Amino acid sequence: MSLKDVQSQKDFRNININKVGVKGVKYPITLLDKKNGLQHTIADINMYVLLPSKFKGTHMSRFIEIINENKNEINIKKIHHILAQTKAKLNAKKAYLEINFDYFVEKQAPVSKIKSLMSYSCGLHAFSSDVDELTLFVKVPVTSLCPCSKEISDYGAHNQRAFVSVYVKFSDMVWIEDVIGIVEANSSSDIYCLLKRPDEKYVTEKAYDNPMFVEDIARNVVKALESDKRIYWYKVEVESLESIHNHNAYACIEKD
Amino acid sequence: MSLKDVQSQKDFRNININKVGVKGVKYPITLLDKKNGLQHTIADINMYVLLPSKFKGTHMSRFIEIINENKNEINIKKIHHILAQTKAKLNAKKAYLEINFDYFVEKQAPVSKIKSLMSYSCGLHAFSSDVDELTLFVKVPVTSLCPCSKEISDYGAHNQRAFVSVYVKFSDMVWIEDVIGIVEANSSSDIYCLLKRPDEKYVTEKAYDNPMFVEDIARNVVKALESDKRIYWYKVEVESLESIHNHNAYACIEKD
Amino acid sequence: MSLKDVQSQKDFRNININKVGVKGVKYPITLLDKKNGLQHTIADINMYVLLPSKFKGTHMSRFIEIINENKNEINIKKIHHILAQTKAKLNAKKAYLEINFDYFVEKQAPVSKIKSLMSYSCGLHAFSSDVDELTLFVKVPVTSLCPCSKEISDYGAHNQRAFVSVYVKFSDMVWIEDVIGIVEANSSSDIYCLLKRPDEKYVTEKAYDNPMFVEDIARNVVKALESDKRIYWYKVEVESLESIHNHNAYACIEKD
Amino acid sequence: MSLKDVQSQKDFRNININKVGVKGVKYPITLLDKKNGLQHTIADINMYVLLPSKFKGTHMSRFIEIINENKNEINIKKIHHILAQTKAKLNAKKAYLEINFDYFVEKQAPVSKIKSLMSYSCGLHAFSSDVDELTLFVKVPVTSLCPCSKEISDYGAHNQRAFVSVYVKFSDMVWIEDVIGIVEANSSSDIYCLLKRPDEKYVTEKAYDNPMFVEDIARNVVKALESDKRIYWYKVEVESLESIHNHNAYACIEKD
Repeated sequence: MSLKDVQSQKDFRNININKVGVKGVKYPITLLDKKNGLQHTIADINMYVLLPSKFKGTHMSRFIEIINENKNEINIKKIHHILAQTKAKLNAKKAYLEINFDYFVEKQAPVSKIKSLMSYSCGLHAFSSDVDELTLFVKVPVTSLCPCSKEISDYGAHNQRAFVSVYVKFSDMVWIEDVIGIVEANSSSDIYCLLKRPDEKYVTEKAYDNPMFVEDIARNVVKALESDKRIYWYKVEVESLESIHNHNAYACIEKD
Repeated sequence: MSLKDVQSQKDFRNININKVGVKGVKYPITLLDKKNGLQHTIADINMYVLLPSKFKGTHMSRFIEIINENKNEINIKKIHHILAQTKAKLNAKKAYLEINFDYFVEKQAPVSKIKSLMSYSCGLHAFSSDVDELTLFVKVPVTSLCPCSKEISDYGAHNQRAFVSVYVKFSDMVWIEDVIGIVEANSSSDIYCLLKRPDEKYVTEKAYDNPMFVEDIARNVVKALESDKRIYWYKVEVESLESIHNHNAYACIEKD
Repeated sequence: MSLKDVQSQKDFRNININKVGVKGVKYPITLLDKKNGLQHTIADINMYVLLPSKFKGTHMSRFIEIINENKNEINIKKIHHILAQTKAKLNAKKAYLEINFDYFVEKQAPVSKIKSLMSYSCGLHAFSSDVDELTLFVKVPVTSLCPCSKEISDYGAHNQRAFVSVYVKFSDMVWIEDVIGIVEANSSSDIYCLLKRPDEKYVTEKAYDNPMFVEDIARNVVKALESDKRIYWYKVEVESLESIHNHNAYACIEKD
Repeated sequence: MSLKDVQSQKDFRNININKVGVKGVKYPITLLDKKNGLQHTIADINMYVLLPSKFKGTHMSRFIEIINENKNEINIKKIHHILAQTKAKLNAKKAYLEINFDYFVEKQAPVSKIKSLMSYSCGLHAFSSDVDELTLFVKVPVTSLCPCSKEISDYGAHNQRAFVSVYVKFSDMVWIEDVIGIVEANSSSDIYCLLKRPDEKYVTEKAYDNPMFVEDIARNVVKALESDKRIYWYKVEVESLESIHNHNAYACIEKD
């Protein structure tokens, strides 16, 4: 039985499609882990190609075949191979791959030294044309403590969970752990999954000693990124779930 | 042209369906507002009926017709009428109506007295069998400040945005504003959309003066609900977006 | 009592902040409605300004004051005024305003002519520097029916709910209703909140008569946008909740 | 340094707290896999205990310690152990554990026999008092094809992605794969991550040959669950993302 290939039919509307493909494919992947070698996680994957104006449609199933073939090796080192394969199999000049996932890092509590796992939302967003371009995305939860509230109040200061989202492009390998380190060193306090009482005292006082607006966190993270020679582009977003409001404070700095 | 009514066909599987209907219908509604008379908002509506075992299907379009007919009058006073109409039009013994929406209340900042609008996620969840049963749901954002952190630290105390979700059943009319008032009086501090510096000083110090665990907020809200003679059932959930963790603290008390 | 203005302090890190402000402010607004004059809805608002390197922080409460002052007049005609006011009150060279909301349009069923309200997710995204730039966003749910599935199958064809997101910039006023009209005329079938049996027969057969890939819908919408002289930029995204997969098909075309 | 244990203080409000603990803890877990022995995934974990009226608060960090101690062994066979440990360490009469995660099963396409991974949202919801009670939750995406649309239309029939959520309590071990099998055999068609053209023809015609309302799917799944002697309680929810509407059709059957 021969079934007609509708997608390969000629198209006469004369319109290129910038991106066409699959979105929201959930898939188990194995990432490179700076400390432990490998880490299992679940990815949410988007894959697209440029479709020239002459074709009616792309072949969606081939994207999934590529994901299947690279099973267990979907990570930062293999991304160039996957993009090249996508361009070849889909007969496309440009390919896009977006992988979003939770990543876990073991942290020691500051005083008790008890270990626990912190989760971070991360992503690898890659684009391939003549050359490949890769953006690493890491979202780090921290504590922000308001300098104004501390300054004007006789005691206390409002503080809250804040999220610092960092996007970086780099020449030499930058690890997720490196980005986390930069952010956690530049917030009112970093946060933990597990804290005992002496740890809680420590992070409470640390945050009070380091009051920062979202503006301060964004600028401090940018200063640290600027001093890292491997990184040639970044965008930093800070969003603070203000404890005294029902909306968030936000700051964003992007390298030109 | 006569089109067959497939839904009305006999069914022989002998299984009642507890709830069948439409889910996620977005619709503009006009609510009763304690202070201003009326308030426009957008509802997310679910409507179901009990379907007896003898029928193959329900008539989904009739639910939408009922919503349309009651346009501009979908509110707490009309709910009994809508439920009765649903049972009649769908020929059902039981009917369910769930309406979720954002509700806005004007609040004055504590010192500057500047007014702004606070938003609250609310719901009316109704069920009609021989009698009608109505549950009002109000989710109130507040500040929670940790008593342990305050006690053990030389200065400061971690605090954060917390959400108090209250579900109540009542004999005499209880307003959304009444539930908000109870919750806001029983948290470390209530929160505002707009605060100037003297207000920020006030809420910062107020929260520090009123440290509460999620357990404390839940119990204090329950005490206030218990003393309200109109309310004969409640469930109170407190979820605090801990500023020192990437997970939340949670407490729940439900009247037997 | 004089409280120190921490935000106005000098900053020495020499880093401009591209965007700083408030995010996720829920607020009731009144929009212009092409047919009915006005429409009440609820907005989710983000407001930012550019902060020059010399200042430590912005004044977050002023954003909320601006929203309050323009109460009941937050719509496409007033946006330029709000942006100008933001630049003036925040003493900023650039201002951003993003307003997202549900918008409702009455539609008549194709055969029975019964009226019901369809909901559409929409947005006004504005930026002001030397000149103002406004993007209108409209997300239209439609039916997509797969041409390949129809071609190769002896009977039937898989179809599904798909979302067409259109972003446009324009010289002369373009209404939300105009964008909806373009999209609904260029899908396998448009969809409705309320359909009786003759209507259901009509949309079923219409979709089967108009099979379209996400690629087809994107190209057809682009053709229609290209022929509208008011529109000088667009981006069109089509995302189809494939009924035979657990992931989505996606196409995107953006004008250079 | 001795830090005061505020949580252990006496409380005089005389109110038990039904559930208190941690919510939204993300954690990598290793599940039992019917075919492959083990499967790595990421869990979203909630853990609570009953707090007697005499205590001011629970000790939140102990929940995380329990998760850490059971690392790599958080699965259906270990749940009783974890619950017992929770009651012991928290000195509580009742404990709750809710684990939600994505689960992957390899499926062969119906004609080409190509293999791919399907993802399913699942959960283990456990409660321990004098005895333990365990509920398994599995959400299965399927195709639903409307019997009314097929009957009244000259050609075609609207169909769409639908989600069947099954909750079961059982005496002898029921696997996630068993529940998936029951649901996929009782829908218009099951769905796949990867389908080639002959497969697409097969599932298109299969769905057209098996038209089912949400009511039909719910009843057919219930019939299959009723005939499984291991299962003594169930709840079945079917939600269909109607391709002709912007809202969903819903049916729910729960065993008394």
